[in-house]
Amino acid sequence: MKTVNVAIIGHKFMGKAHSNAWANINKFFDAPLKPVLKVACGRDEKGTREFADTWGWQDVETDWRKVVERKDVDIIDISTPTDLHAEIAVAAAQAGKQIFCEKPVAVSYAQARQMYEAAEKAGVVHYLNHNYRRVPAISYAKKLIEEGKLGRIYHWRGAYLQDWIMDPGFPLTWHLQKKHAGAGPHFDLGSHSVDLARYLVGDIAEVTAMTSRFIEKRPLPGAGAGTFSAGAAGKESGEVTVEDAAFMVARFEKGALGSFETSRFAGGRKNFNTFEIYGSKGSIAFNLERLNELQYLSLEDDGDQQGFRTIMVTNATHPYVGAWWPPGHIIGYEHEFHHAVLDFLKAVDGKGKVEPNLLDGMREMQVLEAALQSAETGRAVKVSDVK
Amino acid sequence: MKTVNVAIIGHKFMGKAHSNAWANINKFFDAPLKPVLKVACGRDEKGTREFADTWGWQDVETDWRKVVERKDVDIIDISTPTDLHAEIAVAAAQAGKQIFCEKPVAVSYAQARQMYEAAEKAGVVHYLNHNYRRVPAISYAKKLIEEGKLGRIYHWRGAYLQDWIMDPGFPLTWHLQKKHAGAGPHFDLGSHSVDLARYLVGDIAEVTAMTSRFIEKRPLPGAGAGTFSAGAAGKESGEVTVEDAAFMVARFEKGALGSFETSRFAGGRKNFNTFEIYGSKGSIAFNLERLNELQYLSLEDDGDQQGFRTIMVTNATHPYVGAWWPPGHIIGYEHEFHHAVLDFLKAVDGKGKVEPNLLDGMREMQVLEAALQSAETGRAVKVSDVK
Amino acid sequence: MKTVNVAIIGHKFMGKAHSNAWANINKFFDAPLKPVLKVACGRDEKGTREFADTWGWQDVETDWRKVVERKDVDIIDISTPTDLHAEIAVAAAQAGKQIFCEKPVAVSYAQARQMYEAAEKAGVVHYLNHNYRRVPAISYAKKLIEEGKLGRIYHWRGAYLQDWIMDPGFPLTWHLQKKHAGAGPHFDLGSHSVDLARYLVGDIAEVTAMTSRFIEKRPLPGAGAGTFSAGAAGKESGEVTVEDAAFMVARFEKGALGSFETSRFAGGRKNFNTFEIYGSKGSIAFNLERLNELQYLSLEDDGDQQGFRTIMVTNATHPYVGAWWPPGHIIGYEHEFHHAVLDFLKAVDGKGKVEPNLLDGMREMQVLEAALQSAETGRAVKVSDVK
Amino acid sequence: MKTVNVAIIGHKFMGKAHSNAWANINKFFDAPLKPVLKVACGRDEKGTREFADTWGWQDVETDWRKVVERKDVDIIDISTPTDLHAEIAVAAAQAGKQIFCEKPVAVSYAQARQMYEAAEKAGVVHYLNHNYRRVPAISYAKKLIEEGKLGRIYHWRGAYLQDWIMDPGFPLTWHLQKKHAGAGPHFDLGSHSVDLARYLVGDIAEVTAMTSRFIEKRPLPGAGAGTFSAGAAGKESGEVTVEDAAFMVARFEKGALGSFETSRFAGGRKNFNTFEIYGSKGSIAFNLERLNELQYLSLEDDGDQQGFRTIMVTNATHPYVGAWWPPGHIIGYEHEFHHAVLDFLKAVDGKGKVEPNLLDGMREMQVLEAALQSAETGRAVKVSDVK
Repeated sequence: MKTVNVAIIGHKFMGKAHSNAWANINKFFDAPLKPVLKVACGRDEKGTREFADTWGWQDVETDWRKVVERKDVDIIDISTPTDLHAEIAVAAAQAGKQIFCEKPVAVSYAQARQMYEAAEKAGVVHYLNHNYRRVPAISYAKKLIEEGKLGRIYHWRGAYLQDWIMDPGFPLTWHLQKKHAGAGPHFDLGSHSVDLARYLVGDIAEVTAMTSRFIEKRPLPGAGAGTFSAGAAGKESGEVTVEDAAFMVARFEKGALGSFETSRFAGGRKNFNTFEIYGSKGSIAFNLERLNELQYLSLEDDGDQQGFRTIMVTNATHPYVGAWWPPGHIIGYEHEFHHAVLDFLKAVDGKGKVEPNLLDGMREMQVLEAALQSAETGRAVKVSDVK
Repeated sequence: MKTVNVAIIGHKFMGKAHSNAWANINKFFDAPLKPVLKVACGRDEKGTREFADTWGWQDVETDWRKVVERKDVDIIDISTPTDLHAEIAVAAAQAGKQIFCEKPVAVSYAQARQMYEAAEKAGVVHYLNHNYRRVPAISYAKKLIEEGKLGRIYHWRGAYLQDWIMDPGFPLTWHLQKKHAGAGPHFDLGSHSVDLARYLVGDIAEVTAMTSRFIEKRPLPGAGAGTFSAGAAGKESGEVTVEDAAFMVARFEKGALGSFETSRFAGGRKNFNTFEIYGSKGSIAFNLERLNELQYLSLEDDGDQQGFRTIMVTNATHPYVGAWWPPGHIIGYEHEFHHAVLDFLKAVDGKGKVEPNLLDGMREMQVLEAALQSAETGRAVKVSDVK
Repeated sequence: MKTVNVAIIGHKFMGKAHSNAWANINKFFDAPLKPVLKVACGRDEKGTREFADTWGWQDVETDWRKVVERKDVDIIDISTPTDLHAEIAVAAAQAGKQIFCEKPVAVSYAQARQMYEAAEKAGVVHYLNHNYRRVPAISYAKKLIEEGKLGRIYHWRGAYLQDWIMDPGFPLTWHLQKKHAGAGPHFDLGSHSVDLARYLVGDIAEVTAMTSRFIEKRPLPGAGAGTFSAGAAGKESGEVTVEDAAFMVARFEKGALGSFETSRFAGGRKNFNTFEIYGSKGSIAFNLERLNELQYLSLEDDGDQQGFRTIMVTNATHPYVGAWWPPGHIIGYEHEFHHAVLDFLKAVDGKGKVEPNLLDGMREMQVLEAALQSAETGRAVKVSDVK
Repeated sequence: MKTVNVAIIGHKFMGKAHSNAWANINKFFDAPLKPVLKVACGRDEKGTREFADTWGWQDVETDWRKVVERKDVDIIDISTPTDLHAEIAVAAAQAGKQIFCEKPVAVSYAQARQMYEAAEKAGVVHYLNHNYRRVPAISYAKKLIEEGKLGRIYHWRGAYLQDWIMDPGFPLTWHLQKKHAGAGPHFDLGSHSVDLARYLVGDIAEVTAMTSRFIEKRPLPGAGAGTFSAGAAGKESGEVTVEDAAFMVARFEKGALGSFETSRFAGGRKNFNTFEIYGSKGSIAFNLERLNELQYLSLEDDGDQQGFRTIMVTNATHPYVGAWWPPGHIIGYEHEFHHAVLDFLKAVDGKGKVEPNLLDGMREMQVLEAALQSAETGRAVKVSDVK
């Protein structure tokens, strides 16, 4: 089987989720290429070494520039904090590497555009890892929509709520600093929602938004602090420079009216990525905490028999899921990464395209920045006005 | 037992729901007064007569002015289309009648203020029938909040979705005409949501909003058309002059960030009035289609044991509900009207106040109009700027 | 409108629920007769007087025999403890009265048969109040089954669970004494389940069962003790003579395999009357605590689109429910009594039959007694062997 | 790191699930041993070779006896059809191999006892793969019970329902033949339920049961037929010799009353393994199709605040789950196998014990056979009477 050499930059939460997919893809799916886990890269040499040993990455590097320059690397998997994405992606593109980039794409629309242009100029395959498009229930929702089962779409209602920083003692990790993250949940979570809305409903024309910050200062992070993980708290404190919550209303280009709500202050919501879509012929609803299920109501059913159906999206005939276990034997969060890697490898093999990619990243950043501008100025903002 | 004479103006859906409460209140509750169903008033004499016979109203009138002038009437129950509320309420106040007014309070903030001022000047008891405050689960949510169980409140997420006009053949009833209804679901449904948000979270400082109209023309209504009821469709058509959906983001005075979404184009949602409230110590969620249940999560529970509790709010010790049936024997939509009548009669008897009242109506109209201005101008609007 | 005179015997929980239906039936439904609330009867004169005043019963009696003999009474509503049903029903039949009898029908199959034979001999209309048949969702389930939507039925899974006597301090009310109640939850709750199973699936051929008693002695009841209500506890204690839980497996005559589980020791279950029915073409599920909903899955839907539909059984076109409120405006526990009274009055007016009736009561007692025999002997028992 | 050599016998559904766990255990968990995937064994050489290549098994064998005799094998993983378990396990024990055996343990109590005795005599570690004990939600339920959170247990209500053979054209795979499977869903699914009931509630004293077979003849299986998979149907047909459904009532040794219901004819239920446990201090409920959630109600909460809590069992502090993803990022069906392998490796390393094991298998077979005897004889059967 043809192999392809992968380098991963970043070795925390996403490094683990990606490694698992690179390592196991060929066991479950008939992928056209077999990834070789060539290099793992991280600034912390000891931690990166441990990570590489656990996951089977052959080499370790501490400087991402060296990785990008290596001749024996075909694919660069960018799993770093957001502010490093652009520089790495541009360099990778210039070096002719295929790009597998974690979301959110960048800390600004300008960066995202730069990334997209570099990748297109270099003619490399680029993929932006909004993994939730490949939750089987969401892929199946897309299929229902494409078959016309929802008709004309009137509404998108999206929310992505978490609660992991509600404790004022949770430290000032990079996610809470504008320079590293670009924004708070509006980018981290909202980018997922906007990606799904663009995938399922279409492009967004105009937005209006408000944001809030509930806690202004937090202890500086000590060892072990990261995504979802408080680690040890430092003694000094620093200023939170991103929002804690962002609520946005949007008008889609084809006329649907939508909402997007993100927060890290929604007690009890752990990974509550939900949406409802209402159309002239049917409605669907989804909740990532029950990701094997899709709620679907058909307005074409007999009126008295209509109701939201709880579909277990675990049939062999549902998207992707036949490769896993029998019906009703549910899959977990990590499996979407396999589906993403599968389709990315197909594109790499066939010199094709895969979606979402850096163009999608650029478009979604335009929406997200429009909302930040709206929150700041108190005006509705046209997405196309973000340059 | 002391009696009190009631006149009702309007005899459709709300006329029925109110009559049921006036007629049966003393069977279930220990109210201080016994309502006498004195006069029913409607422009359609035959229909009003039938209504009066069914529900036991002693007399029938076709001119509401005569009703307001009758000496043998103590209470005016205003159950007409919205545009008539103000004139009737002002006249009723001037005649010294106690006022039980259906929501939404009026077609504009200006009218609502006029109503409130007239009632206060006359010193009459006035009540605005946002009946959902007295759903036991919501009254109980209020109790939890007042006891501090939610702590500092970060978010309100409210939606009120229906689907009864999705068929383009549904006729142009008064609800779809700005002159009669003031606005579409934003007033009809949104007034409920704003009332509940003000009740549970507090006043709103600023809003931003967008609205949509999906169907521009509809057949003129024939016989039998009314709320939720298409009736016969006429041959001619007329223009829809209200929105079909309105999505609003709001900042509360105490800092919470909130959303309010109303639509009549949400297929499968019949009376889907839902809200979630997130605070520093706990969260709650409610859905009117399951009105006997309250979802409550306490962040003060042991971390591993936390989860949204589905509380059946049907204990004898829960608000109002002990007067009905044993635990688990659920109550229906209509019962809230009894609870409203009970508290209104207590106010009438004791010359006290009852909430919500015309002041609340005025405040909520200010919020709702601010949103309409925002939708029109593309700017966030301060509620206090609505005059 | 033609009137019909009603006498009610018993004035506790059921007396209230029945009175509400007799008093209000004509307001919501186009019934052929108007009930006149003629006499209320109870051994406790003061309590009965208060009850009669509240609900509008014209006269009060303390001796049920006098009620049965009154010429101005057409209908006898039997709402007493179970052990009195038979004697009253037989006397009522012999006096030519129409019979509206609360469930469970009697304390034994022998009594039930006696009641049925007396009623048939007298040619009176008789109705046994398994009110749940007329929950709209259940009536609608029946319709689906009759239309063949479930195909051949393989399984009934019924459970009726409560928790109101879990506290060992709950007193020894009549429900816990074999001489008054015949049995524990197996009769009280199980009679409902068996009635619904017979209605929806068909007759039962053979059963096997086990029962348990978790608390052997309880304080004698003081004032105020009743169904769901502990009242004051007495100082002395007495022996519980019924089971606390009964689990039964059954084979239906047409081949389905079923289960019936009743308990008063299921913490958190207030009125948890649930069932699932599985057939070759579809499945349904129901929970009385959400009585406005029916879960329905059609195996004839496209395989990938199959899921249990949560149908809000609140459309005007669903059984009974159009008489109440618009779609999504849910009804409560009490409304089933109106539906029962409606159909009973139709039978009385038309000299027809109504179901369930004393024949159904007889059949269901045969099933329930078979289970008690099975629990005692450790053998499966054929229902037809109960004489 | 110390390694340990594994041989797997069987390469279908369970072969895949087990291989995944052996291959990846050290990536997620700090296990004391590293499994080496030494030999895969199956009668179909070509299929086994493909399986070995996919999953990284070094060698391939077609005769399980050779595998058992290999000196370079430490662990025998038995993933064959049920009727082969006993012979293989006994041989493996005699050869001093550690045993990891798929459930159900055997086709009879006699076999299970033989297996247990051989393993004990040989002093090898033995594990019976009732993987559901290690669903984090179930492990956590066990913790709650051990902490006394449920108090005295009154009820177990277990059901395990599927629908994969409802089509009469589904072929006569080995699962439908008594000689290969011992029984139908009563063994396949019921063994899981009985294992969980024994784990969470305790041993069972006596049972009564009924079984049904709805389809008597089926086509002989063609290529590709297997668990959950119809494959090609042959032209000839054969007789189904197991039950299609089995419903059982049980009395536990400590007095709880329980039910166990299994069926392969429950339309819409894919892997619906559910249970409820009711105790004097609390209740829990679980559904495998939502395996990341546990329903828990505490009767020690304030009465008005009681409700079933939907706990997302995905915290780092919940059992096992911290090794996977952050809170709310759910795990799938396969992850339990990792947890099982982890604990099995600990036992192998420490020469300790792991549960459930062949003793549990023996005990649960005693219960299951008692039920079959009961169904046949129409009598309740004491578990200890099964020899």
